[in-house]
Amino acid sequence: MQYDIAKSLEILERTPSVLTSLLSGIDDEWIMNNEGPDTFSPYDVVGHLLHGEKTDWTARIKRILDHGTSKSFDSFDRFAMYEESKGKTMQQLLNEFENIRKQNMIWFKSLDLQQIDYDKKGLHPKLGEVTLRNLLATWVVHDLTHIAQITRVMAKQYKTEIGPWVEFFRILNF
Amino acid sequence: MQYDIAKSLEILERTPSVLTSLLSGIDDEWIMNNEGPDTFSPYDVVGHLLHGEKTDWTARIKRILDHGTSKSFDSFDRFAMYEESKGKTMQQLLNEFENIRKQNMIWFKSLDLQQIDYDKKGLHPKLGEVTLRNLLATWVVHDLTHIAQITRVMAKQYKTEIGPWVEFFRILNF
Repeated sequence: MQYDIAKSLEILERTPSVLTSLLSGIDDEWIMNNEGPDTFSPYDVVGHLLHGEKTDWTARIKRILDHGTSKSFDSFDRFAMYEESKGKTMQQLLNEFENIRKQNMIWFKSLDLQQIDYDKKGLHPKLGEVTLRNLLATWVVHDLTHIAQITRVMAKQYKTEIGPWVEFFRILNF
Repeated sequence: MQYDIAKSLEILERTPSVLTSLLSGIDDEWIMNNEGPDTFSPYDVVGHLLHGEKTDWTARIKRILDHGTSKSFDSFDRFAMYEESKGKTMQQLLNEFENIRKQNMIWFKSLDLQQIDYDKKGLHPKLGEVTLRNLLATWVVHDLTHIAQITRVMAKQYKTEIGPWVEFFRILNF
């Protein structure tokens, strides 16, 4: 599947409602447990998505448009949410994410990018040269894979309770 | 996390709205592509969930309550949806799934199961003895892991488009 801006916005615009459907009002046991030491709980993942929305995706788009490869992206702190989410409920994180994603979509559309813009290059501090198209596709993939992660983490909470069925669920061993 | 009926219903009851948020009205490229030969597309997965809802979960619950281990479960056809979904749109499948899941939840609550019931045993044709608790926990895990699968399959469609970022997404290689 080739990168297509309309098809990408279809995903980015619906992620807040997917997360809300999945996580709003649910028991803490589903959202505060993780997959073991140094792994994210669903609560952590939503905080991580929120932090990216505030500090990362739009900043990197701007960096490419303003500076090309002459100034590399700032590093993204993948663990910032451990501090930032403190004291917030899941519902607060979901609401904040929904609001800022909506603003970011409005901002993004206002850029009115043309086909030629997607080939513009930026510099990732670890990966080197990337295109704006790569960055925008990664925004989509990042949403989708974190939804996959959340549901996998939730499923794992019942790994023992399913008894003999565990052998049919390869995904629980990831 | 121990099996708890209220916490399980929290998942089972929200799965239709999660699937609708994720898949309703989206471009066919996101829902008709799969992970390669002999794998499911998101469209296939929803058909598979619908088939299970019609033929499998409630029938197996009844079998345990009516026959214990004296009569094993019927086998579940994991590929029945290839025939059953023919000619149906994703929206039709989503609507059917929402309706039948709702009916199944009403039926399930009407059973008014007691703690002692969850230890009742049934006979799985391949796995041997399983408890009603195992079966009910598996219903939840089956929902969650298939949502994980759908979002992983969707993410993989952009595996090439993300360029160098692919190395940060272990999940795309599953």
